Amino acid sequence: MILPYDDTYFMKRALQEAEMAFEKGEVPIGAVVVIQDRIIARAHNLTEQLNDVTAHAEMQAITAAANFLGGKYLKGCTLYVTLEPCQMCAGALFWSQVSKVVFAAPDPQRGCSAMGTKLHPKTKIIGGILENEAAELLKRFFIQKRNLN
Amino acid sequence: MILPYDDTYFMKRALQEAEMAFEKGEVPIGAVVVIQDRIIARAHNLTEQLNDVTAHAEMQAITAAANFLGGKYLKGCTLYVTLEPCQMCAGALFWSQVSKVVFAAPDPQRGCSAMGTKLHPKTKIIGGILENEAAELLKRFFIQKRNLN
Repeated sequence: MILPYDDTYFMKRALQEAEMAFEKGEVPIGAVVVIQDRIIARAHNLTEQLNDVTAHAEMQAITAAANFLGGKYLKGCTLYVTLEPCQMCAGALFWSQVSKVVFAAPDPQRGCSAMGTKLHPKTKIIGGILENEAAELLKRFFIQKRNLN
Repeated sequence: MILPYDDTYFMKRALQEAEMAFEKGEVPIGAVVVIQDRIIARAHNLTEQLNDVTAHAEMQAITAAANFLGGKYLKGCTLYVTLEPCQMCAGALFWSQVSKVVFAAPDPQRGCSAMGTKLHPKTKIIGGILENEAAELLKRFFIQKRNLN
């Protein structure tokens, strides 16, 4: 049986969210939460629009997924995000006990790996799925922003 | 001139918030954000009630303070919280560029110090203000919880 759903499929959905952020003038980062091949939450960065440093895509996706599930733990879920989570988001993912985190582009400056943020021992993390597409979108955003200023 | 406002005064206000959490069956942690001796945000832990691991007192206080100020940065602000911030909350405080963080009880297990979470270089952090009162409230909560189960 051919399964259409794989990490690349869901990362494309996260990239669609990132594009929505781009169109709003937000740093283009998107996230989706998946359980049993079903997307239960989608979100994109809204820090500018909401004037809120906590409004990262992952934070909103965690809240929305818990709301959908009716419980605060995301066991059995995978979070897809287009940029490696920061300290705050990795810290939230730690508390959520999410089963898997898949990110696209690494963030050597502010990413949880460079910052040494701990995920839950039961959480697997992988990176590099559609890395170029995610990095390209971010690069395009910052070039456009620089040209506008 | 005698100034009634000091770290102890504002930590008492954070402890009042922690007591409100206690009464709701939440782990009793409270926070306030202060700018120029004025409280602009107050919040307490609501993770159970909201079914949301991101609903820590500090996270809500950061969002509320930014909302009050009309900007996402908390420069010039002090956040008072009754327990040392975790990775997530310290990560959010990093992004907020808050000027000062004052906590009551340390958290040797999950606190940002033990976890190695970085605050913004411009942020000062001190602990131990009304430490015993905050620790006592937490202890009382967990004893009560254990007896109910």
